[in-house]
Amino acid sequence: MKKPVVAILGATGAVGQEFIRLIEERQFPYSKLILLASSRSAGKKMSVNGHVYTVEEATPESFTGVDIGLFAGGAISKTLAPEAAKRGCVVIDNSSAFRMDKTVPLVIPEINAADIAMHQGIIANPNCSTIIMLMALKPIYDLSPITKIIVSTYQAVSGAGKEGIEELETEVKDFLQGKEMQAHILPTKSLDTHYPIAFNLIPHIDVFLDNDYSKEEMKMVHETHKILHQDTIAITATTVRVPVFRSHAESIYVETEEPVSVEAVRQALDAFPGVQVEDDPVHMKYPMPLYTSEKYDCYVGRIRKDLYNEKAVNLWVCGDQIRKGAALNALQIAEYMLAHDLLL
Amino acid sequence: MKKPVVAILGATGAVGQEFIRLIEERQFPYSKLILLASSRSAGKKMSVNGHVYTVEEATPESFTGVDIGLFAGGAISKTLAPEAAKRGCVVIDNSSAFRMDKTVPLVIPEINAADIAMHQGIIANPNCSTIIMLMALKPIYDLSPITKIIVSTYQAVSGAGKEGIEELETEVKDFLQGKEMQAHILPTKSLDTHYPIAFNLIPHIDVFLDNDYSKEEMKMVHETHKILHQDTIAITATTVRVPVFRSHAESIYVETEEPVSVEAVRQALDAFPGVQVEDDPVHMKYPMPLYTSEKYDCYVGRIRKDLYNEKAVNLWVCGDQIRKGAALNALQIAEYMLAHDLLL
Repeated sequence: MKKPVVAILGATGAVGQEFIRLIEERQFPYSKLILLASSRSAGKKMSVNGHVYTVEEATPESFTGVDIGLFAGGAISKTLAPEAAKRGCVVIDNSSAFRMDKTVPLVIPEINAADIAMHQGIIANPNCSTIIMLMALKPIYDLSPITKIIVSTYQAVSGAGKEGIEELETEVKDFLQGKEMQAHILPTKSLDTHYPIAFNLIPHIDVFLDNDYSKEEMKMVHETHKILHQDTIAITATTVRVPVFRSHAESIYVETEEPVSVEAVRQALDAFPGVQVEDDPVHMKYPMPLYTSEKYDCYVGRIRKDLYNEKAVNLWVCGDQIRKGAALNALQIAEYMLAHDLLL
Repeated sequence: MKKPVVAILGATGAVGQEFIRLIEERQFPYSKLILLASSRSAGKKMSVNGHVYTVEEATPESFTGVDIGLFAGGAISKTLAPEAAKRGCVVIDNSSAFRMDKTVPLVIPEINAADIAMHQGIIANPNCSTIIMLMALKPIYDLSPITKIIVSTYQAVSGAGKEGIEELETEVKDFLQGKEMQAHILPTKSLDTHYPIAFNLIPHIDVFLDNDYSKEEMKMVHETHKILHQDTIAITATTVRVPVFRSHAESIYVETEEPVSVEAVRQALDAFPGVQVEDDPVHMKYPMPLYTSEKYDCYVGRIRKDLYNEKAVNLWVCGDQIRKGAALNALQIAEYMLAHDLLL
């Protein structure tokens, strides 16, 4: 098969840069590569596989002749993704704009790769917290259907992009120098008020909805239903930003139709691609964000039977927000499309 | 009533120093004050209400003639508390040694102060995470009995004492200077392996038990049953250390026998002593550790009806680990004893 023409939209951001690292690491094939961004970043030089590229300003015309568009996310997706698709480019979009669109597959390749085939030019990459949770839960779901999930997240600042990462570092420096910490980005850049994240926790990600849940919390509900093709699962999420750079963690209580043993859960997780079991508490083995950053896999530990419900299991999962939570998952979708000849 | 003779055991640690600050702030009455510690800290000078005291080495004889012993915690409690009680001193003990002893009241004054009267010389101060959780849950329990609790904690390093606080600060400094972070205290000082907490999360507090839950997690189960006098409540805890200095946070899912409205929960919390409702997400009002540190009260927000269970409510609580989680709660017990003439 002919190598595709690939465009990366948002190439200079945290997810965009990760696309480039992963294309190099995984030797993703391309005949031509185009780096795109907003006018603000156009003109920057970036190196990929030893070649220097100039970042171009993204316009609808940028996608003429492009086979795969890797969209890092952001508001720009909403207008440019349909324009790209119209021009024969399959967009893999990391924004939330199209995730719940019935004509758009929402895909975690290890879980529902088959959905990719029904795409009409746009494929959505799920929310980072949803991906990392479902990597730990799908192997359990395959043992016995999941009926209820209660999840509390511990989310890294990388979810707010490069600016979020820089903000944590700047705040910590100011704190150590006895200066007042200045917040400009978190919890949500577009809002008027900002709080320091250094030495703090912010139970607010994205924006709040009328039901007093945050949009991030409802994404975990709706996207899980769509990815698992099962909208009766009772899901409750509490999403919290923590002063960690780039790996999310989640504490998950999960109920299944029939009881599943911890041993069966461990085996199922162990056999699942993209999941590592790290679970030997007495020997102090459990996933931690510091050590699961920059990894491809999601790490699951603290697996234990609920003490009061024989149909419930508790666990703790960590995964790199920028990799499996964003760029890696999107690139895996692209790899699947190439392997199965699913481009437009 | 005659003012009591008061001894503080562990006066130089994080909780001991907080006892002193609170005695000053709350004008706790005493006719004589004795500061005690291990031989390592004996000889240090500390100022209380403008008077300088020399810290003495604690021995059984230290408690002769003492009315109230405020024990900051640690292994020393186990031997010295009975010795003090034998000498007529009522010990309020912050260690876990006596909490589950049937002859020892385990008390949060706002919740079960009446239990204090049955003491036989030792009163136990509950675990910090238990106190902060129950301050948020008792008002709900009073609306309708609680049947199930699923809690994930976000616990500050102050729970590991002054050394834990210093470790976080040192690690952050090393990280910013590009040095490797050196861990010596967390997650649990007495274990051989230690992990950095800066920019990390450690799902391990205290030690692990045979059932793969940590002792900290089981404290939240057993202590809740004892304090509420109700051992049928199904409780699942996941306890996690986070890079925050001194305020714990907890994400709580709670089921009640009968449905309770969010409005009723807010009113009940609002009316409860020691609790503040901070819950207006659209205006970005919710509790955060940075702003609940050094406060007396526990702050509750993110109060919302579960979307799938009409008998369940979700909430987020923050409280100062050293104050309400330890020294303040203990001092409130002492204040109650003075007010009700309950000394030996």
